Amino acid sequence: MRIGIFDSGLGGLIVARAIRRAMPQYDYVYLGDTKRVPYGSRSCKTVQEFTEESVRYLCEKEKCSLIVLACNTASSQALRKMQKIFTGQKILGVLIPAAEEAAKFMRIGVLGTAGTVASKSFPAEIKKLNPKAKIFQNAAPMLVPLAEAWEGNNTVPFIKKYLRPFAGKKIEALVLGCTHYPIFKREIARTLRSFSEVGKNIKIISQDEIVPEKLKNYLARHPEIEKKLSQGATAKILVTDETETIDKLAQKWFGGVKPKLISLS
Amino acid sequence: MRIGIFDSGLGGLIVARAIRRAMPQYDYVYLGDTKRVPYGSRSCKTVQEFTEESVRYLCEKEKCSLIVLACNTASSQALRKMQKIFTGQKILGVLIPAAEEAAKFMRIGVLGTAGTVASKSFPAEIKKLNPKAKIFQNAAPMLVPLAEAWEGNNTVPFIKKYLRPFAGKKIEALVLGCTHYPIFKREIARTLRSFSEVGKNIKIISQDEIVPEKLKNYLARHPEIEKKLSQGATAKILVTDETETIDKLAQKWFGGVKPKLISLS
Repeated sequence: MRIGIFDSGLGGLIVARAIRRAMPQYDYVYLGDTKRVPYGSRSCKTVQEFTEESVRYLCEKEKCSLIVLACNTASSQALRKMQKIFTGQKILGVLIPAAEEAAKFMRIGVLGTAGTVASKSFPAEIKKLNPKAKIFQNAAPMLVPLAEAWEGNNTVPFIKKYLRPFAGKKIEALVLGCTHYPIFKREIARTLRSFSEVGKNIKIISQDEIVPEKLKNYLARHPEIEKKLSQGATAKILVTDETETIDKLAQKWFGGVKPKLISLS
Repeated sequence: MRIGIFDSGLGGLIVARAIRRAMPQYDYVYLGDTKRVPYGSRSCKTVQEFTEESVRYLCEKEKCSLIVLACNTASSQALRKMQKIFTGQKILGVLIPAAEEAAKFMRIGVLGTAGTVASKSFPAEIKKLNPKAKIFQNAAPMLVPLAEAWEGNNTVPFIKKYLRPFAGKKIEALVLGCTHYPIFKREIARTLRSFSEVGKNIKIISQDEIVPEKLKNYLARHPEIEKKLSQGATAKILVTDETETIDKLAQKWFGGVKPKLISLS
């Protein structure tokens, strides 16, 4: 059985690549719903409907026994529902691993899509582990399109605008609550540290650095799931729409695997 | 029978508002496929599939006899196909009206989404009318998300970047080949005129200024279509996904009409 990794688009490839590097022995199948990306600005009901169709494909057509929702919007709005619907498979999100890291701090910033921020899932999960933590959220709606349009230089004013509300909040850590944001990790760190009100030792919590280790630990604790996983060291990328840009982004963020077009219906 | 106006999202409301101002007597229904916006970066096949579903809804559920595809991506990639499928209704696009204006010039710039530019529909339509015209296209992928995210100040570097390739081409006119771009009309004109290589009298061809008059003329020339149109002076907005942002954008770009959520399937 393969490990399925799902994202609304291609941003999840950044986490998928990190997982594969940490555990190259398994067989992976990545599904990006490029026909309907982005999810971040859609309603909760729509995010659940779209996520269910993709998870169903991974379960039924790709025989995945373990599926990671490598999309924070889906993790925050659809994880519980998927776990209720697909009881024969294990469905994990990327939100709780980041929340566990964040809960080690007392004053935490969270940067996410409009949907993730509105769902309040990060504050809820962090507070379960650290009820006294103070959490400050801010939505960064443009960072996903900026990442997918290969925009580097022109992102700085947006990063400044989205981080500005955290200045003066004395945050000790910032959660990058969207799988695309690690692309801008260095610029985010630099901008945060440029605010005089922010300490120089602020911790950036980035899921590509956290999720692989958490998944490894999870499999070590659940040998009944681990032993089902096939070890052919393969990886494939499935997409619901194919364009030249999608091929290029997949090459940039994962490399060496050409996306294959599928239909969910 | 109503006039149907279709767009991938809410950008088409800018053209819809202009049409309604020019001919307030008719009954209008606007459909924005906000569940799957944007179309500009999707494949041609997907644009055709999505457009067909929306046009079918307007024909069958809303009894529209005349439908305007107020989306350049759909107009460039799906108009012909829709006209073949829906033979009982009249389907018009927004591309040809702009091409007719553009064809009055000899050196023409076209700014559009990746999909519109790749389709080469603007050059093809302009050349039919003015075979000797020189046409220069450039894609502006970020302008739609910038418009939908209410970004004003931070758009200037993008506008400069997208217009820069037209400098030195001695263009006499620039087609704003996407229904969202009129939002940035003033900034686009200012930026173009700031290039020393570009003449001060450059004409900006903006569909919100052209389409209403062309449609009025069309109805005057086709009384058999005009007489079918009901004259209740009403307007409604239908959307396939509903969020707070969608409601706010509809208010900003059309005003006074609350979007109603529908399902295409």
